[in-house]
Amino acid sequence: MTLAMDIDALGRFLDETFPQVAGEIVIEDLREGSLRSRLSVTDRHLRPGGTVSGPAMFGLADVSVYLAILAMIGPKSLAVTTNCSIDFMRKPQAAADLICECRLLKLGRVLAVGDCLIYSHGVASPVARAALTYSIPPAG
Amino acid sequence: MTLAMDIDALGRFLDETFPQVAGEIVIEDLREGSLRSRLSVTDRHLRPGGTVSGPAMFGLADVSVYLAILAMIGPKSLAVTTNCSIDFMRKPQAAADLICECRLLKLGRVLAVGDCLIYSHGVASPVARAALTYSIPPAG
Amino acid sequence: MTLAMDIDALGRFLDETFPQVAGEIVIEDLREGSLRSRLSVTDRHLRPGGTVSGPAMFGLADVSVYLAILAMIGPKSLAVTTNCSIDFMRKPQAAADLICECRLLKLGRVLAVGDCLIYSHGVASPVARAALTYSIPPAG
Amino acid sequence: MTLAMDIDALGRFLDETFPQVAGEIVIEDLREGSLRSRLSVTDRHLRPGGTVSGPAMFGLADVSVYLAILAMIGPKSLAVTTNCSIDFMRKPQAAADLICECRLLKLGRVLAVGDCLIYSHGVASPVARAALTYSIPPAG
Repeated sequence: MTLAMDIDALGRFLDETFPQVAGEIVIEDLREGSLRSRLSVTDRHLRPGGTVSGPAMFGLADVSVYLAILAMIGPKSLAVTTNCSIDFMRKPQAAADLICECRLLKLGRVLAVGDCLIYSHGVASPVARAALTYSIPPAG
Repeated sequence: MTLAMDIDALGRFLDETFPQVAGEIVIEDLREGSLRSRLSVTDRHLRPGGTVSGPAMFGLADVSVYLAILAMIGPKSLAVTTNCSIDFMRKPQAAADLICECRLLKLGRVLAVGDCLIYSHGVASPVARAALTYSIPPAG
Repeated sequence: MTLAMDIDALGRFLDETFPQVAGEIVIEDLREGSLRSRLSVTDRHLRPGGTVSGPAMFGLADVSVYLAILAMIGPKSLAVTTNCSIDFMRKPQAAADLICECRLLKLGRVLAVGDCLIYSHGVASPVARAALTYSIPPAG
Repeated sequence: MTLAMDIDALGRFLDETFPQVAGEIVIEDLREGSLRSRLSVTDRHLRPGGTVSGPAMFGLADVSVYLAILAMIGPKSLAVTTNCSIDFMRKPQAAADLICECRLLKLGRVLAVGDCLIYSHGVASPVARAALTYSIPPAG
């Protein structure tokens, strides 16, 4: 299976479809079945105590696995997140971007599953892990 | 066990501690071990296609179970979300607030567990379910 | 929506289809969208330290939500578990049966979602909670 | 951090502590923070339709991450599973052993988190993924 969209096409799709995160999330690397993204952490992602909020990490994981799926099946399909399990394992650093390493584990006709590890940039141990399932509507 | 904070004290704590959601999330009902909250859905919670974003639903569940725990143990404790599993079951309505019905299932010395159902206001079937675990740091 | 199978038909289906648990799991109550089951705890479900094993609780939740779905859609369909999240909250008693209270949260064309609370018989606080998703293959 | 138990010590601990799975689960490889195990699939793990049961896969993941933790902290500690999320992605083969590849993602003072991919032996795509959290009781 080859990529249906390259990193530039995927980035344009992201900016058009998710204007809320346009400019915040950048795709750094894209391969068949894997993707690395980066969230530019700003004040609006922070929580009191100087850490990145849970919804910001959840959102990064959700968008990243979604893009890894679309890279394989193309932009026309409208995949919907149906499930997410996430473990928050360490406190992210407030002054560092988040790096999300995703891999696609299943790309079926009806369901796709991916997981990811999220890191504070420059720190070896992951701050969170997540697995997500997407329902892929029938074509046509 | 009785409530350590009433609905007004909990609301003030929410506004002070989570300025990002102040005014958006309101506690509608509070009992021992259960809480109902409401998210005023605005443009910033919406996704293309006219639906509420996943991170907005995740954030509502996270804050609501957190508040249900603090209502029991008081505002001084710093509970941290360690795990969340969430199922997105139906598309929320764009023009309706979200209602979150939480219950505490466990309030231990070290871990607390709660779950919730999220509804579009006025619709009988839930749009999402979530379960969350919080780590409660030792007192003192 | 009415029940496609009553409690007796569902019990016979269970005994024929899951001979491994025949006689161990009994359906105690069945309504539209909810089901209560009981696991007769025996030595083979126990772990050292006198508690019921995780796989035994997982299996009870899995079979119970599955039966709650089949009660609605009938025995011919072949639903497959695609996801489970489970929290083990308290140590079950070794000398008590497990009671599983399930409810169906979604019964869609492609996916069904249910959750359950599991109790040691006679104890008020649940020992575990679980949510499960099933993929329902197309008819015909 | 170095290993507190080697593969032989861990195997003896498994046989003594989990007599139910003694002889069924074998540790094939052990490193700091990772472990590979194998479940000898027999009739008692099978479901109608010629596939391995969900509880058998859950149990393999649970035991394997537990052993990966004990390899680091030693056999005296009594870690307890508090959470598991598992995705069943493909139908396992009935006539093949299951291979479980685990990695420890966090080994904290109170909580440990690991995840795993489960394969039918000889098949490249995983049949399941799971993440598990364990509560580590205070020493002494």
